Amino acid sequence: MQEFKHISSIQNSLIKRVVLLQNKSKERRKEGLFILEGKRELELALKSGYTIETLLYNEKLVTRSEVERILKTTWSTSLVSVSQEVYNKLAYRNTTEGLLVVALAKNHQLEQLEFKSKNPLVLVAEAPEKPGNIGALLRTADAANLDAIIIANPKTDLYNPNIIRSSVGCVFTRNIALADTPDIISFLKKKNISIYCAALNASKTYIELDYTGPSAIVVGTEDSGLSEEWLRTSKQNIIIPMEGEIDSMNVSVSAAILIFEAKRQRQNRPATK
Amino acid sequence: MQEFKHISSIQNSLIKRVVLLQNKSKERRKEGLFILEGKRELELALKSGYTIETLLYNEKLVTRSEVERILKTTWSTSLVSVSQEVYNKLAYRNTTEGLLVVALAKNHQLEQLEFKSKNPLVLVAEAPEKPGNIGALLRTADAANLDAIIIANPKTDLYNPNIIRSSVGCVFTRNIALADTPDIISFLKKKNISIYCAALNASKTYIELDYTGPSAIVVGTEDSGLSEEWLRTSKQNIIIPMEGEIDSMNVSVSAAILIFEAKRQRQNRPATK
Repeated sequence: MQEFKHISSIQNSLIKRVVLLQNKSKERRKEGLFILEGKRELELALKSGYTIETLLYNEKLVTRSEVERILKTTWSTSLVSVSQEVYNKLAYRNTTEGLLVVALAKNHQLEQLEFKSKNPLVLVAEAPEKPGNIGALLRTADAANLDAIIIANPKTDLYNPNIIRSSVGCVFTRNIALADTPDIISFLKKKNISIYCAALNASKTYIELDYTGPSAIVVGTEDSGLSEEWLRTSKQNIIIPMEGEIDSMNVSVSAAILIFEAKRQRQNRPATK
Repeated sequence: MQEFKHISSIQNSLIKRVVLLQNKSKERRKEGLFILEGKRELELALKSGYTIETLLYNEKLVTRSEVERILKTTWSTSLVSVSQEVYNKLAYRNTTEGLLVVALAKNHQLEQLEFKSKNPLVLVAEAPEKPGNIGALLRTADAANLDAIIIANPKTDLYNPNIIRSSVGCVFTRNIALADTPDIISFLKKKNISIYCAALNASKTYIELDYTGPSAIVVGTEDSGLSEEWLRTSKQNIIIPMEGEIDSMNVSVSAAILIFEAKRQRQNRPATK
């Protein structure tokens, strides 16, 4: 660890840089850095091999020894204590854990995806926009222990603070790739992964299909669904029957229904690995 | 319809009353009224037999004849045209449909619940707090065409504008009751409806159970789960296995997984009605 440093001015250049990284997706992309907040989130990021550049903490809320315990052997991290005023400026409301870090983003290239399982189950979400929905998708992907979640034609920076928060840190636990739809389709075909697209006008209901082999479940946006490219390429388009008055579901809810049906089938009849 | 009336001042007493009803749950309860906004929401409310006291519309966004078409034979409704300034004050951002109504709340008493089906499937949510989660639960309940959704120990007024919005109007389509946990338990027992409680420490996974008979799926809050009263009464507590790093799911996501598993079983093996 480096020598003791304390910042008590919100005019300090490091603090200004943190604020920029919190607010500006462009800045995050340029620097390859992002901000995360909270103990659990930090622990999940460290467990997944993220590199922490700087850790800011407020001594009234968390002790230096607690911070060092969480960081463990991450000696390259620069530790900075900040005043209450500075911490309050940086922290989101409702968070009183007292720590916040500047971390190095991963690149999330499709080519780097490696599946542990020989019989992968993958979720693809095309062009999801709302951070809350993306966070919820990541949480569901974590709960189901999916082999990967792939975001097609991303509209929102993965390190958006609202995604990190609504994913409760699952953004760090997942095997996540971001790519364009045509590249993902080629990738899945090359890996012999069957594509099942959720579509409101599909002829088969989702419970009629068999997902016990290598499968990708593909969901689009609530407003416009999936692009033609996906629907054409699909092994089978599938529908969750809507039996009420409205005609659409929240994307994270429909993804969860489809993923857990695949999980159920795999538990009852595991494919040979 | 009553004679033509136009309001162009935000100081008008009706406009002040609308603002109060939008913002104050206490006021809504006292008056037995609430505010809803948007064409689809109004159509759903009318279809479910809600009474509309007053309809405010802005002529730049919606014509009087369109408004009359939607209202159909609701002659008792007082129609008021409002200026752009007044409308902008009342309307939520992103809504440009130009109409907003004062409607009579229903009472949602448990005793008034009537099931169309002799083999009902019911969702019970105990003490859900976030309007967004409640809205999502109502959407899922609508999609699954549940016989009822019962909110136990409600923390949030059902006519909270954020519930109405996030439910995309499903708050009007559902057979919804609000009651205390002991009353709901008695009610379900009297109706011979089996109780299945979602619990993180349950010994059975949700896919092991049979929901083809009259069933209530009961979910608690993300933070503290269900109360002991529910867990003790349950025919069987059930768990959705969490295989990742985190240990909880969003309540609307877990409710959807459970409900759609029950639906799947019922489709594959319908109980005798």
